[in-house]
Amino acid sequence: MALQNKEFEISKFHRDHVARLKDNIATEEPLEIRVVFGAEGDRRSKNLSITMRTPGNDPELAVGFLLSEGIIKSPGDVIGCESEGPISDDSEVGNTIFVELSEAAQFDPSEFQRHFYATSSCGVCGKASLETLRNQHIKPIAESVRVERKLIFQLPEMLRKQQGVFDVTGGLHAAGLFDLEGELLCIREDVGRHNAVDKLIGSQILAKVGQAGSLSLGGHLLVVSGRASFELMQKAVVARIPALVAVGAPSSLAVDLAREFRMVLIGFTSGERFNVYAGEDQIS
Amino acid sequence: MALQNKEFEISKFHRDHVARLKDNIATEEPLEIRVVFGAEGDRRSKNLSITMRTPGNDPELAVGFLLSEGIIKSPGDVIGCESEGPISDDSEVGNTIFVELSEAAQFDPSEFQRHFYATSSCGVCGKASLETLRNQHIKPIAESVRVERKLIFQLPEMLRKQQGVFDVTGGLHAAGLFDLEGELLCIREDVGRHNAVDKLIGSQILAKVGQAGSLSLGGHLLVVSGRASFELMQKAVVARIPALVAVGAPSSLAVDLAREFRMVLIGFTSGERFNVYAGEDQIS
Repeated sequence: MALQNKEFEISKFHRDHVARLKDNIATEEPLEIRVVFGAEGDRRSKNLSITMRTPGNDPELAVGFLLSEGIIKSPGDVIGCESEGPISDDSEVGNTIFVELSEAAQFDPSEFQRHFYATSSCGVCGKASLETLRNQHIKPIAESVRVERKLIFQLPEMLRKQQGVFDVTGGLHAAGLFDLEGELLCIREDVGRHNAVDKLIGSQILAKVGQAGSLSLGGHLLVVSGRASFELMQKAVVARIPALVAVGAPSSLAVDLAREFRMVLIGFTSGERFNVYAGEDQIS
Repeated sequence: MALQNKEFEISKFHRDHVARLKDNIATEEPLEIRVVFGAEGDRRSKNLSITMRTPGNDPELAVGFLLSEGIIKSPGDVIGCESEGPISDDSEVGNTIFVELSEAAQFDPSEFQRHFYATSSCGVCGKASLETLRNQHIKPIAESVRVERKLIFQLPEMLRKQQGVFDVTGGLHAAGLFDLEGELLCIREDVGRHNAVDKLIGSQILAKVGQAGSLSLGGHLLVVSGRASFELMQKAVVARIPALVAVGAPSSLAVDLAREFRMVLIGFTSGERFNVYAGEDQIS
Protein backbone atom coordinates (compact mmCIF):
# COMPACT_ATOMS: atom_id res chain seq x y z
CA MET A 1 0.00 0.00 0.00
CA ALA A 2 2.84 2.40 0.77
CA LEU A 3 3.78 2.19 -2.87
CA GLN A 4 0.41 3.27 -4.04
CA ASN A 5 0.08 6.52 -2.18
CA LYS A 6 2.39 9.25 -0.95
CA GLU A 7 2.03 11.70 1.89
CA PHE A 8 2.08 15.41 1.08
CA GLU A 9 1.57 18.46 3.26
CA ILE A 10 -1.40 20.38 1.87
CA SER A 11 -3.89 23.10 2.82
CA LYS A 12 -7.56 22.24 3.20
CA PHE A 13 -9.98 25.13 2.76
CA HIS A 14 -13.49 24.79 4.20
CA ARG A 15 -15.56 27.98 3.89
CA ASP A 16 -13.55 30.54 5.92
CA HIS A 17 -11.21 28.04 7.53
CA VAL A 18 -7.84 26.78 6.39
CA ALA A 19 -6.05 23.79 7.88
CA ARG A 20 -2.50 22.77 7.10
CA LEU A 21 -2.15 18.99 7.29
CA LYS A 22 -0.71 15.82 5.82
CA ASP A 23 -2.73 14.02 3.17
CA ASN A 24 -2.34 10.86 1.10
CA ILE A 25 -2.23 11.17 -2.66
CA ALA A 26 -2.38 8.37 -5.22
CA THR A 27 1.06 7.67 -6.67
CA GLU A 28 1.61 8.14 -10.39
CA GLU A 29 4.90 7.13 -12.01
CA PRO A 30 6.00 6.03 -15.48
CA LEU A 31 6.46 2.34 -16.21
CA GLU A 32 8.43 1.10 -19.18
CA ILE A 33 7.23 -2.25 -20.52
CA ARG A 34 9.84 -4.31 -22.38
CA VAL A 35 9.59 -7.80 -23.83
CA VAL A 36 12.47 -10.29 -23.89
CA PHE A 37 12.21 -12.54 -26.92
CA GLY A 38 14.09 -14.61 -29.48
CA ALA A 39 15.64 -18.08 -29.66
CA GLU A 40 17.98 -19.37 -26.94
CA GLY A 41 21.41 -17.84 -27.38
CA ASP A 42 19.88 -14.86 -29.22
CA ARG A 43 17.60 -13.29 -26.58
CA ARG A 44 16.95 -9.56 -26.97
CA SER A 45 14.65 -7.04 -25.34
CA LYS A 46 12.49 -4.36 -26.90
CA ASN A 47 10.62 -1.37 -25.45
CA LEU A 48 6.92 -1.60 -26.22
CA SER A 49 5.38 1.10 -24.10
CA ILE A 50 5.83 3.72 -21.44
CA THR A 51 2.68 4.30 -19.44
CA MET A 52 1.87 6.38 -16.37
CA ARG A 53 0.61 4.08 -13.64
CA THR A 54 0.25 3.59 -9.91
CA PRO A 55 3.17 1.37 -8.85
CA GLY A 56 2.36 -2.14 -7.68
CA ASN A 57 1.29 -5.28 -9.57
CA ASP A 58 3.53 -4.20 -12.43
CA PRO A 59 4.02 -7.73 -13.83
CA GLU A 60 0.22 -8.04 -14.03
CA LEU A 61 -0.05 -4.67 -15.73
CA ALA A 62 2.59 -5.67 -18.26
CA VAL A 63 1.14 -9.04 -19.24
CA GLY A 64 -2.43 -7.69 -19.28
CA PHE A 65 -1.24 -4.98 -21.65
CA LEU A 66 0.49 -7.55 -23.87
CA LEU A 67 -2.71 -9.59 -24.09
CA SER A 68 -4.75 -6.51 -25.09
CA GLU A 69 -2.18 -5.70 -27.74
CA GLY A 70 -2.32 -9.19 -29.19
CA ILE A 71 1.36 -9.78 -28.39
CA ILE A 72 0.54 -12.77 -26.20
CA LYS A 73 -2.42 -15.07 -26.72
CA SER A 74 -2.31 -17.34 -23.67
CA PRO A 75 -0.50 -17.79 -20.34
CA GLY A 76 1.82 -20.22 -22.14
CA ASP A 77 3.38 -17.34 -24.05
CA VAL A 78 4.90 -15.92 -20.84
CA ILE A 79 7.88 -17.40 -19.01
CA GLY A 80 8.14 -14.77 -16.28
CA CYS A 81 8.59 -11.10 -15.40
CA GLU A 82 11.38 -9.11 -13.85
CA SER A 83 11.40 -5.59 -12.50
CA GLU A 84 14.38 -3.27 -12.81
CA GLY A 85 15.48 0.25 -11.85
CA PRO A 86 15.66 3.15 -11.85
CA ILE A 87 14.19 2.74 -8.42
CA SER A 88 12.25 5.86 -7.50
CA ASP A 89 13.25 7.82 -4.43
CA ASP A 90 10.62 6.55 -2.10
CA SER A 91 9.54 3.18 -3.40
CA GLU A 92 11.19 -0.15 -3.85
CA VAL A 93 9.70 -0.84 -7.22
CA GLY A 94 11.64 -0.42 -10.42
CA ASN A 95 10.08 1.54 -13.23
CA THR A 96 11.04 -0.92 -15.96
CA ILE A 97 9.42 -4.32 -16.27
CA PHE A 98 10.76 -7.09 -18.51
CA VAL A 99 8.34 -9.77 -19.68
CA GLU A 100 10.09 -12.94 -20.83
CA LEU A 101 8.22 -14.35 -23.81
CA SER A 102 8.45 -18.03 -24.73
CA GLU A 103 9.46 -18.94 -28.23
CA ALA A 104 5.87 -20.10 -28.74
CA ALA A 105 4.78 -16.45 -28.54
CA GLN A 106 6.48 -15.89 -31.92
CA PHE A 107 7.06 -12.22 -31.21
CA ASP A 108 8.10 -10.25 -34.28
CA PRO A 109 9.48 -6.82 -33.35
CA SER A 110 9.13 -5.46 -36.89
CA GLU A 111 5.34 -5.79 -36.63
CA PHE A 112 5.35 -3.23 -33.86
CA GLN A 113 7.50 -0.58 -35.45
CA ARG A 114 4.64 1.22 -37.11
CA HIS A 115 1.44 2.58 -35.65
CA PHE A 116 2.15 1.47 -32.16
CA TYR A 117 0.80 3.75 -29.53
CA ALA A 118 0.60 3.26 -25.80
CA THR A 119 -1.66 5.22 -23.56
CA SER A 120 -2.39 5.89 -19.94
CA SER A 121 -6.10 5.65 -20.21
CA CYS A 122 -6.76 4.47 -23.68
CA GLY A 123 -4.73 1.34 -24.18
CA VAL A 124 -4.66 0.82 -27.89
CA CYS A 125 -5.53 3.99 -29.72
CA GLY A 126 -3.43 2.92 -32.68
CA LYS A 127 -5.59 -0.14 -33.18
CA ALA A 128 -8.68 1.72 -32.30
CA SER A 129 -11.50 0.42 -34.37
CA LEU A 130 -13.82 -2.50 -34.64
CA GLU A 131 -12.27 -3.26 -37.99
CA THR A 132 -8.90 -3.76 -36.38
CA LEU A 133 -10.37 -6.16 -33.86
CA ARG A 134 -11.93 -8.19 -36.66
CA ASN A 135 -8.61 -8.21 -38.45
CA GLN A 136 -7.04 -9.60 -35.30
CA HIS A 137 -9.45 -12.53 -35.56
CA ILE A 138 -11.23 -11.61 -32.35
CA LYS A 139 -14.55 -13.46 -32.50
CA PRO A 140 -17.88 -12.56 -30.91
CA ILE A 141 -18.50 -14.08 -27.47
CA ALA A 142 -20.30 -17.35 -28.21
CA GLU A 143 -21.35 -18.35 -24.70
CA SER A 144 -24.37 -16.62 -23.18
CA VAL A 145 -24.32 -15.58 -19.49
CA ARG A 146 -27.25 -15.12 -17.10
CA VAL A 147 -26.69 -12.05 -14.94
CA GLU A 148 -29.11 -11.51 -12.04
CA ARG A 149 -30.68 -8.09 -11.90
CA LYS A 150 -30.36 -8.04 -8.09
CA LEU A 151 -26.65 -8.71 -8.30
CA ILE A 152 -26.09 -5.83 -10.72
CA PHE A 153 -27.60 -3.33 -8.28
CA GLN A 154 -25.10 -4.50 -5.63
CA LEU A 155 -21.92 -4.55 -7.71
CA PRO A 156 -20.80 -0.88 -7.35
CA GLU A 157 -21.05 -1.03 -3.57
CA MET A 158 -19.28 -4.39 -3.45
CA LEU A 159 -16.44 -2.98 -5.55
CA ARG A 160 -16.27 0.26 -3.60
CA LYS A 161 -15.94 -1.54 -0.27
CA GLN A 162 -12.78 -3.29 -1.44
CA GLN A 163 -11.03 -0.21 -2.81
CA GLY A 164 -8.21 0.06 -0.31
CA VAL A 165 -6.19 2.83 -1.93
CA PHE A 166 -9.24 4.87 -2.91
CA ASP A 167 -10.23 4.95 0.75
CA VAL A 168 -6.93 6.63 1.53
CA THR A 169 -6.60 8.97 -1.44
CA GLY A 170 -10.00 9.36 -3.13
CA GLY A 171 -8.11 9.25 -6.39
CA LEU A 172 -8.03 5.86 -8.06
CA HIS A 173 -9.96 3.91 -10.64
CA ALA A 174 -10.85 0.32 -9.76
CA ALA A 175 -11.60 -2.82 -11.75
CA GLY A 176 -13.05 -5.96 -10.20
CA LEU A 177 -13.59 -9.48 -11.49
CA PHE A 178 -16.76 -11.11 -10.15
CA ASP A 179 -18.32 -14.49 -10.80
CA LEU A 180 -22.02 -14.80 -11.58
CA GLU A 181 -22.84 -15.49 -7.92
CA GLY A 182 -21.35 -12.12 -7.02
CA GLU A 183 -18.11 -13.30 -5.51
CA LEU A 184 -15.26 -10.85 -5.98
CA LEU A 185 -12.28 -12.83 -7.27
CA CYS A 186 -9.83 -9.98 -7.81
CA ILE A 187 -9.68 -6.19 -7.58
CA ARG A 188 -7.02 -3.80 -8.85
CA GLU A 189 -6.65 -0.01 -8.61
CA ASP A 190 -4.72 2.55 -10.64
CA VAL A 191 -4.67 6.24 -11.61
CA GLY A 192 -5.37 5.06 -15.18
CA ARG A 193 -8.60 3.15 -15.65
CA HIS A 194 -7.14 0.97 -18.40
CA ASN A 195 -4.21 0.09 -16.14
CA ALA A 196 -6.59 -1.20 -13.47
CA VAL A 197 -8.17 -3.50 -16.09
CA ASP A 198 -4.77 -4.59 -17.45
CA LYS A 199 -3.63 -5.48 -13.91
CA LEU A 200 -6.81 -7.43 -13.28
CA ILE A 201 -6.58 -9.44 -16.49
CA GLY A 202 -2.82 -9.81 -16.02
CA SER A 203 -3.38 -11.32 -12.57
CA GLN A 204 -5.41 -14.10 -14.19
CA ILE A 205 -2.72 -14.72 -16.80
CA LEU A 206 0.06 -14.87 -14.21
CA ALA A 207 -1.93 -17.36 -12.14
CA LYS A 208 -1.54 -19.75 -15.07
CA VAL A 209 1.83 -18.62 -16.34
CA GLY A 210 3.58 -21.11 -18.57
CA GLN A 211 0.42 -23.17 -19.03
CA ALA A 212 -0.97 -23.75 -22.48
CA GLY A 213 -4.61 -23.00 -23.21
CA SER A 214 -6.70 -19.89 -22.89
CA LEU A 215 -7.72 -17.84 -19.88
CA SER A 216 -11.26 -19.18 -19.46
CA LEU A 217 -12.83 -16.09 -17.92
CA GLY A 218 -16.11 -17.04 -19.56
CA GLY A 219 -18.52 -16.98 -16.60
CA HIS A 220 -17.29 -13.68 -15.19
CA LEU A 221 -18.18 -10.01 -14.94
CA LEU A 222 -15.76 -7.10 -15.25
CA VAL A 223 -16.88 -4.23 -13.02
CA VAL A 224 -15.26 -0.78 -13.39
CA SER A 225 -15.59 2.26 -11.14
CA GLY A 226 -15.70 4.81 -13.95
CA ARG A 227 -16.81 5.09 -17.53
CA ALA A 228 -16.80 2.41 -20.22
CA SER A 229 -14.71 3.49 -23.19
CA PHE A 230 -13.88 1.57 -26.35
CA GLU A 231 -10.57 0.42 -24.97
CA LEU A 232 -12.01 -1.12 -21.81
CA MET A 233 -14.49 -3.10 -23.93
CA GLN A 234 -11.63 -4.08 -26.22
CA LYS A 235 -9.65 -5.44 -23.26
CA ALA A 236 -12.69 -7.37 -22.06
CA VAL A 237 -13.39 -8.99 -25.40
CA VAL A 238 -9.75 -9.93 -25.98
CA ALA A 239 -9.71 -11.57 -22.51
CA ARG A 240 -13.07 -13.24 -23.42
CA ILE A 241 -14.94 -11.69 -20.46
CA PRO A 242 -18.58 -11.65 -21.62
CA ALA A 243 -19.94 -8.74 -19.56
CA LEU A 244 -18.81 -5.29 -18.44
CA VAL A 245 -20.61 -3.34 -15.72
CA ALA A 246 -19.62 0.36 -15.38
CA VAL A 247 -20.56 2.80 -12.66
CA GLY A 248 -20.30 5.63 -15.20
CA ALA A 249 -21.39 6.29 -18.77
CA PRO A 250 -20.37 4.29 -21.84
CA SER A 251 -19.09 5.84 -25.06
CA SER A 252 -20.75 5.25 -28.43
CA LEU A 253 -17.92 3.05 -29.64
CA ALA A 254 -18.06 0.93 -26.49
CA VAL A 255 -21.73 0.25 -27.25
CA ASP A 256 -20.96 -0.55 -30.89
CA LEU A 257 -18.25 -2.97 -29.85
CA ALA A 258 -20.43 -4.70 -27.24
CA ARG A 259 -23.27 -5.20 -29.72
CA GLU A 260 -21.05 -6.48 -32.48
CA PHE A 261 -19.16 -8.90 -30.25
CA ARG A 262 -22.31 -10.07 -28.39
CA MET A 263 -21.25 -8.83 -24.97
CA VAL A 264 -23.28 -7.47 -22.08
CA LEU A 265 -22.66 -3.76 -21.43
CA ILE A 266 -24.25 -2.06 -18.43
CA GLY A 267 -23.68 1.56 -17.39
CA PHE A 268 -24.78 4.18 -14.83
CA THR A 269 -25.04 1.37 -12.30
CA SER A 270 -26.20 2.23 -8.77
CA GLY A 271 -28.14 0.59 -5.95
CA GLU A 272 -31.48 1.23 -7.64
CA ARG A 273 -30.78 1.77 -11.33
CA PHE A 274 -28.73 0.69 -14.27
CA ASN A 275 -28.89 0.98 -18.06
CA VAL A 276 -28.34 -1.96 -20.40
CA TYR A 277 -26.67 -0.99 -23.66
CA ALA A 278 -26.09 -4.46 -25.05
CA GLY A 279 -27.12 -8.00 -24.20
CA GLU A 280 -30.41 -7.24 -22.47
CA ASP A 281 -31.64 -10.79 -23.05
CA GLN A 282 -28.89 -11.99 -20.72
CA ILE A 283 -30.25 -10.10 -17.69
CA SER A 284 -32.59 -12.23 -15.55
CA MET B 1 -23.81 18.89 -31.03
CA ALA B 2 -25.12 16.10 -33.23
CA LEU B 3 -21.54 15.09 -33.81
CA GLN B 4 -20.82 14.74 -30.16
CA ASN B 5 -23.52 12.32 -29.19
CA LYS B 6 -25.41 9.49 -30.83
CA GLU B 7 -28.83 8.07 -30.13
CA PHE B 8 -29.09 4.42 -29.11
CA GLU B 9 -32.06 2.32 -28.05
CA ILE B 10 -31.34 1.01 -24.56
CA SER B 11 -33.09 -0.55 -21.54
CA LYS B 12 -33.33 1.39 -18.29
CA PHE B 13 -33.78 -0.72 -15.17
CA HIS B 14 -35.17 0.93 -12.03
CA ARG B 15 -35.85 -1.51 -9.20
CA ASP B 16 -38.44 -3.88 -10.67
CA HIS B 17 -39.22 -1.82 -13.74
CA VAL B 18 -37.66 -1.89 -17.18
CA ALA B 19 -38.20 0.75 -19.83
CA ARG B 20 -37.06 0.50 -23.42
CA LEU B 21 -36.18 3.94 -24.76
CA LYS B 22 -33.83 6.07 -26.82
CA ASP B 23 -30.85 7.60 -25.07
CA ASN B 24 -27.96 9.86 -26.06
CA ILE B 25 -24.44 8.56 -25.70
CA ALA B 26 -21.20 10.52 -26.02
CA THR B 27 -19.51 9.81 -29.35
CA GLU B 28 -16.05 8.26 -29.37
CA GLU B 29 -14.13 7.83 -32.61
CA PRO B 30 -10.46 7.63 -33.59
CA LEU B 31 -8.70 10.72 -34.92
CA GLU B 32 -5.45 10.53 -36.82
CA ILE B 33 -3.26 13.62 -36.42
CA ARG B 34 -0.83 14.31 -39.26
CA VAL B 35 1.53 17.22 -39.78
CA VAL B 36 2.38 18.70 -43.19
CA PHE B 37 5.91 20.06 -43.22
CA GLY B 38 8.99 20.78 -45.32
CA ALA B 39 10.17 23.50 -47.68
CA GLU B 40 8.00 24.74 -50.55
CA GLY B 41 8.07 22.26 -53.37
CA ASP B 42 8.98 19.45 -50.94
CA ARG B 43 5.94 19.33 -48.63
CA ARG B 44 5.26 15.96 -46.97
CA SER B 45 2.92 14.69 -44.28
CA LYS B 46 3.60 12.43 -41.33
CA ASN B 47 1.33 10.56 -38.92
CA LEU B 48 2.03 11.63 -35.34
CA SER B 49 -0.82 10.10 -33.38
CA ILE B 50 -4.09 8.25 -33.41
CA THR B 51 -6.27 9.12 -30.45
CA MET B 52 -9.82 8.23 -29.43
CA ARG B 53 -11.84 11.42 -29.13
CA THR B 54 -15.28 12.95 -29.30
CA PRO B 55 -15.59 14.46 -32.80
CA GLY B 56 -15.74 18.25 -33.08
CA ASN B 57 -13.09 20.94 -32.66
CA ASP B 58 -10.57 18.57 -34.23
CA PRO B 59 -8.24 21.33 -35.48
CA GLU B 60 -8.06 22.63 -31.90
CA LEU B 61 -7.38 19.14 -30.56
CA ALA B 62 -4.59 18.66 -33.09
CA VAL B 63 -2.76 21.94 -32.49
CA GLY B 64 -3.20 21.69 -28.70
CA PHE B 65 -1.65 18.23 -28.89
CA LEU B 66 1.25 19.54 -30.99
CA LEU B 67 1.95 22.26 -28.43
CA SER B 68 1.97 19.73 -25.56
CA GLU B 69 4.37 17.57 -27.54
CA GLY B 70 6.74 20.45 -28.16
CA ILE B 71 6.24 20.18 -31.93
CA ILE B 72 4.94 23.73 -32.16
CA LYS B 73 6.00 26.55 -29.87
CA SER B 74 3.71 29.42 -30.89
CA PRO B 75 0.69 30.19 -33.10
CA GLY B 76 3.18 31.32 -35.75
CA ASP B 77 4.24 27.72 -36.30
CA VAL B 78 0.80 26.83 -37.72
CA ILE B 79 -0.45 27.82 -41.18
CA GLY B 80 -3.80 26.03 -41.01
CA CYS B 81 -5.65 22.74 -40.57
CA GLU B 82 -7.63 20.53 -42.90
CA SER B 83 -9.90 17.61 -42.13
CA GLU B 84 -10.16 14.54 -44.35
CA GLY B 85 -12.02 11.22 -44.57
CA PRO B 86 -12.81 8.50 -43.99
CA ILE B 87 -16.04 10.18 -43.09
CA SER B 88 -17.86 8.11 -40.50
CA ASP B 89 -21.34 6.84 -41.31
CA ASP B 90 -23.30 9.36 -39.35
CA SER B 91 -21.14 12.42 -39.02
CA GLU B 92 -19.72 14.92 -41.43
CA VAL B 93 -16.34 15.09 -39.81
CA GLY B 94 -13.33 13.32 -41.23
CA ASN B 95 -11.23 11.22 -38.92
CA THR B 96 -7.89 12.51 -40.19
CA ILE B 97 -6.69 16.03 -39.50
CA PHE B 98 -3.74 17.62 -41.29
CA VAL B 99 -1.94 20.47 -39.53
CA GLU B 100 0.10 22.62 -41.92
CA LEU B 101 3.31 23.67 -40.19
CA SER B 102 5.22 26.76 -41.26
CA GLU B 103 8.88 26.42 -42.12
CA ALA B 104 9.57 28.36 -38.93
CA ALA B 105 8.34 25.35 -36.94
CA GLN B 106 11.48 23.47 -38.07
CA PHE B 107 9.79 20.10 -37.74
CA ASP B 108 12.21 17.18 -37.90
CA PRO B 109 10.42 13.86 -38.42
CA SER B 110 13.41 11.79 -37.32
CA GLU B 111 13.15 13.25 -33.80
CA PHE B 112 9.78 11.61 -33.42
CA GLN B 113 10.61 8.13 -34.60
CA ARG B 114 11.60 6.85 -31.21
CA HIS B 115 9.73 6.87 -27.93
CA PHE B 116 6.71 8.61 -29.30
CA TYR B 117 3.50 7.53 -27.73
CA ALA B 118 0.05 9.02 -28.04
CA THR B 119 -2.73 8.40 -25.61
CA SER B 120 -6.41 8.94 -25.11
CA SER B 121 -6.20 10.06 -21.54
CA CYS B 122 -2.55 10.46 -20.88
CA GLY B 123 -1.16 12.64 -23.61
CA VAL B 124 2.55 12.16 -23.44
CA CYS B 125 3.44 9.02 -21.59
CA GLY B 126 6.64 8.67 -23.58
CA LYS B 127 7.92 11.96 -22.25
CA ALA B 128 6.48 11.34 -18.90
CA SER B 129 8.75 12.77 -16.31
CA LEU B 130 9.76 16.05 -14.81
CA GLU B 131 13.24 15.44 -16.15
CA THR B 132 11.92 15.39 -19.68
CA LEU B 133 10.13 18.68 -19.16
CA ARG B 134 13.34 20.25 -17.91
CA ASN B 135 15.16 18.87 -20.91
CA GLN B 136 12.57 20.55 -23.12
CA HIS B 137 13.58 23.85 -21.53
CA ILE B 138 10.18 24.35 -19.92
CA LYS B 139 10.77 26.94 -17.20
CA PRO B 140 8.87 27.45 -13.94
CA ILE B 141 6.00 29.93 -14.11
CA ALA B 142 7.58 33.27 -13.15
CA GLU B 143 4.48 35.40 -12.79
CA SER B 144 2.44 35.05 -9.60
CA VAL B 145 -1.39 35.05 -9.75
CA ARG B 146 -3.91 36.06 -7.08
CA VAL B 147 -6.83 33.64 -7.03
CA GLU B 148 -9.83 34.58 -4.88
CA ARG B 149 -10.97 31.89 -2.49
CA LYS B 150 -14.63 32.75 -3.19
CA LEU B 151 -14.13 32.29 -6.90
CA ILE B 152 -12.60 28.84 -6.42
CA PHE B 153 -15.69 27.58 -4.58
CA GLN B 154 -17.83 28.66 -7.56
CA LEU B 155 -15.73 27.26 -10.40
CA PRO B 156 -17.07 23.66 -10.55
CA GLU B 157 -20.67 24.86 -10.75
CA MET B 158 -19.78 27.50 -13.34
CA LEU B 159 -18.08 24.85 -15.47
CA ARG B 160 -20.86 22.33 -15.00
CA LYS B 161 -23.54 24.77 -16.14
CA GLN B 162 -21.83 25.19 -19.49
CA GLN B 163 -21.33 21.49 -20.22
CA GLY B 164 -23.74 21.11 -23.12
CA VAL B 165 -22.90 17.56 -24.16
CA PHE B 166 -22.63 16.29 -20.61
CA ASP B 167 -26.20 17.44 -20.03
CA VAL B 168 -27.32 15.17 -22.83
CA THR B 169 -25.10 12.15 -22.21
CA GLY B 170 -23.70 12.32 -18.67
CA GLY B 171 -20.49 11.02 -20.16
CA LEU B 172 -17.91 13.68 -20.95
CA HIS B 173 -14.94 15.34 -19.36
CA ALA B 174 -14.81 19.14 -19.53
CA ALA B 175 -12.03 21.73 -19.42
CA GLY B 176 -12.69 25.45 -19.01
CA LEU B 177 -10.47 28.50 -19.29
CA PHE B 178 -11.40 31.25 -16.82
CA ASP B 179 -9.88 34.63 -16.15
CA LEU B 180 -9.14 35.75 -12.59
CA GLU B 181 -12.49 37.58 -12.37
CA GLY B 182 -14.25 34.28 -13.02
CA GLU B 183 -15.28 34.87 -16.59
CA LEU B 184 -15.43 31.68 -18.63
CA LEU B 185 -13.54 32.33 -21.85
CA CYS B 186 -13.76 28.86 -23.40
CA ILE B 187 -15.04 25.38 -22.58
CA ARG B 188 -14.42 22.10 -24.38
CA GLU B 189 -15.71 18.55 -23.76
CA ASP B 190 -14.42 15.11 -24.73
CA VAL B 191 -14.52 11.44 -23.72
CA GLY B 192 -10.79 11.81 -22.98
CA ARG B 193 -9.88 14.35 -20.34
CA HIS B 194 -6.58 15.23 -22.01
CA ASN B 195 -8.43 15.81 -25.29
CA ALA B 196 -10.70 18.37 -23.63
CA VAL B 197 -7.60 20.25 -22.44
CA ASP B 198 -5.88 19.95 -25.84
CA LYS B 199 -8.99 21.37 -27.53
CA LEU B 200 -9.15 24.23 -25.06
CA ILE B 201 -5.50 25.19 -25.48
CA GLY B 202 -5.73 24.60 -29.23
CA SER B 203 -8.64 27.05 -29.45
CA GLN B 204 -6.37 29.75 -28.05
CA ILE B 205 -3.61 28.90 -30.52
CA LEU B 206 -5.98 28.93 -33.50
CA ALA B 207 -7.34 32.34 -32.47
CA LYS B 208 -3.85 33.69 -33.17
CA VAL B 209 -2.84 31.35 -35.96
CA GLY B 210 0.07 32.59 -38.06
CA GLN B 211 0.99 35.26 -35.52
CA ALA B 212 4.41 35.30 -33.97
CA GLY B 213 4.81 35.44 -30.21
CA SER B 214 3.57 33.22 -27.43
CA LEU B 215 0.07 32.36 -26.22
CA SER B 216 -0.06 34.73 -23.23
CA LEU B 217 -2.44 32.71 -21.07
CA GLY B 218 -0.70 34.08 -18.01
CA GLY B 219 -3.61 35.47 -16.00
CA HIS B 220 -5.86 32.45 -16.44
CA LEU B 221 -7.15 29.37 -14.66
CA LEU B 222 -7.60 25.93 -16.18
CA VAL B 223 -10.59 24.17 -14.59
CA VAL B 224 -11.15 20.44 -15.20
CA SER B 225 -14.17 18.32 -14.31
CA GLY B 226 -12.19 15.26 -13.26
CA ARG B 227 -8.87 14.37 -11.73
CA ALA B 228 -5.54 16.13 -12.17
CA SER B 229 -2.92 13.78 -13.60
CA PHE B 230 0.67 14.48 -14.56
CA GLU B 231 -0.23 14.98 -18.18
CA LEU B 232 -2.87 17.63 -17.52
CA MET B 233 -0.35 19.61 -15.44
CA GLN B 234 2.19 19.11 -18.21
CA LYS B 235 -0.22 20.58 -20.77
CA ALA B 236 -0.92 23.53 -18.49
CA VAL B 237 2.74 24.34 -17.89
CA VAL B 238 3.66 24.05 -21.56
CA ALA B 239 0.79 26.47 -22.39
CA ARG B 240 2.02 28.70 -19.52
CA ILE B 241 -1.30 28.58 -17.63
CA PRO B 242 -0.30 29.25 -14.01
CA ALA B 243 -3.14 27.48 -12.15
CA LEU B 244 -5.14 24.27 -12.45
CA VAL B 245 -8.35 23.68 -10.50
CA ALA B 246 -9.68 20.09 -10.52
CA VAL B 247 -13.00 18.81 -9.25
CA GLY B 248 -11.35 15.46 -8.50
CA ALA B 249 -8.14 14.22 -6.91
CA PRO B 250 -4.61 14.98 -8.08
CA SER B 251 -1.91 12.34 -8.57
CA SER B 252 1.43 12.47 -6.78
CA LEU B 253 3.30 13.39 -9.94
CA ALA B 254 0.86 16.21 -10.69
CA VAL B 255 1.68 17.67 -7.27
CA ASP B 256 5.41 17.24 -7.83
CA LEU B 257 5.18 19.00 -11.18
CA ALA B 258 3.09 21.88 -9.82
CA ARG B 259 5.53 22.49 -6.97
CA GLU B 260 8.60 22.32 -9.14
CA PHE B 261 7.20 24.61 -11.81
CA ARG B 262 5.65 27.07 -9.31
CA MET B 263 2.06 26.53 -10.36
CA VAL B 264 -1.16 26.60 -8.34
CA LEU B 265 -2.81 23.17 -8.04
CA ILE B 266 -6.20 22.83 -6.38
CA GLY B 267 -8.20 19.59 -6.09
CA PHE B 268 -11.42 18.15 -4.63
CA THR B 269 -13.08 21.49 -5.38
CA SER B 270 -16.73 21.94 -4.41
CA GLY B 271 -19.05 24.74 -3.28
CA GLU B 272 -17.69 24.64 0.26
CA ARG B 273 -14.30 22.98 0.14
CA PHE B 274 -11.10 22.63 -1.80
CA ASN B 275 -7.55 21.42 -1.18
CA VAL B 276 -4.47 23.37 -2.22
CA TYR B 277 -1.56 21.14 -3.22
CA ALA B 278 0.75 23.82 -4.56
CA GLY B 279 0.92 27.62 -4.58
CA GLU B 280 -1.07 28.28 -1.42
CA ASP B 281 0.47 31.76 -1.10
CA GLN B 282 -1.36 32.69 -4.31
CA ILE B 283 -4.85 32.13 -2.82
CA SER B 284 -6.35 35.31 -1.37
